[in-house]
Amino acid sequence: MPPARRIPEATVARLPIYQRLLLELVRSGAATVSSEQLATLAGVNASKVRKDLSFLGSFGTRGSGYDAEFLLGQIDRELGLDQDWPMAIVGIGNLGRALAAAPGFSSRGFRICGLFDVDPSVVGTRVRGVLVRHVDELERVMAEDPPAIGVVATPAGVAQVVADRLVAAGVKALLNFAPRVLSVPEEVLLRSVDLSIELQVISFHLSHGTTAPAAVDGAAMAAVD
Amino acid sequence: MPPARRIPEATVARLPIYQRLLLELVRSGAATVSSEQLATLAGVNASKVRKDLSFLGSFGTRGSGYDAEFLLGQIDRELGLDQDWPMAIVGIGNLGRALAAAPGFSSRGFRICGLFDVDPSVVGTRVRGVLVRHVDELERVMAEDPPAIGVVATPAGVAQVVADRLVAAGVKALLNFAPRVLSVPEEVLLRSVDLSIELQVISFHLSHGTTAPAAVDGAAMAAVD
Repeated sequence: MPPARRIPEATVARLPIYQRLLLELVRSGAATVSSEQLATLAGVNASKVRKDLSFLGSFGTRGSGYDAEFLLGQIDRELGLDQDWPMAIVGIGNLGRALAAAPGFSSRGFRICGLFDVDPSVVGTRVRGVLVRHVDELERVMAEDPPAIGVVATPAGVAQVVADRLVAAGVKALLNFAPRVLSVPEEVLLRSVDLSIELQVISFHLSHGTTAPAAVDGAAMAAVD
Repeated sequence: MPPARRIPEATVARLPIYQRLLLELVRSGAATVSSEQLATLAGVNASKVRKDLSFLGSFGTRGSGYDAEFLLGQIDRELGLDQDWPMAIVGIGNLGRALAAAPGFSSRGFRICGLFDVDPSVVGTRVRGVLVRHVDELERVMAEDPPAIGVVATPAGVAQVVADRLVAAGVKALLNFAPRVLSVPEEVLLRSVDLSIELQVISFHLSHGTTAPAAVDGAAMAAVD
């Protein structure tokens, strides 16, 4: 791993956006991509794109742009998407199902190793080929195939209990979709997503008659700037 | 509307986080809240909280903290949540259903005025009391009760077509959950959410052995810092 340089959190948050845009460009047959192109698609300015990418090493060629596939590979590696991140999702309601089916949750490094719920009509069914088990089995199943990441997609009322059990069973990180502030031990990485935050950002701009940055894209780190 | 001062985009992205934390504090009976408390919960430092809130006017009292309910009201007003934002959701699969049921999508200013899908097993059913109609009816239904915001929760392949129809039918803003970069006319506000971005931020930190800012919370504006 070459750079000892610490990548700023705001850059970390933009890398997945570049990754997704590059994936789309590569799939559509693009061989090269300019920082201007990426900037327009990501809704940031080109100098910021160049600065962000400079943290990955210097491999852009002035004038001819970046090799799209190579850059994609570099970003994948930087994001750790070349590694295996087994993941357990607890709460297989509509959101849990949507997450289990989301392309970003089942590819690019992530692998669903456990789905858990308490609803008897859901336990025993399969989502994308993976058996949904009762939460009572969580510790036993996790001991066999330990997930690195636990995803909490339960109702708010049980989110903390579920988080505690996932942490006790050894996950290194939690991704929380429940509308509840969770507490976890310091060594566990916690990230939370509130699906309605972008809606409120829209409401802000509509009510103020202001414009938001064009095509801003992503669910990430509102608290960092 | 008092302040002519333009609120920075990063502050706009944090207001919904403060809003959600305050809502939880007020519900749990808290009368006042300190900037330190809010800062810890939001995973930012206290001086940033104070600076963010200063854009709303000066109503914190040094030493005794903020009146929680008053501050919540101020943030609601700033975010435009005291207004009515009718909203149409297109794509009533697992994600669309999860969104329609999410507390943030049906309260605090937002009102679902239309749900649309093409699946015959879904069209005609009700989600949270709202009838799901066929997308063929979109223009007619929207002419009767025009939504300000269109939410795209369709598969990627049809997202642009759906966006075009929502724009043609008069929405002022689009919130896109489909994994596809959309293009819209300049006057239409576009925000996109990728549910897997936080997962990639987690993967970055796990693979680098670094820690992310504690309890960062929210789906917002990765491209802005």
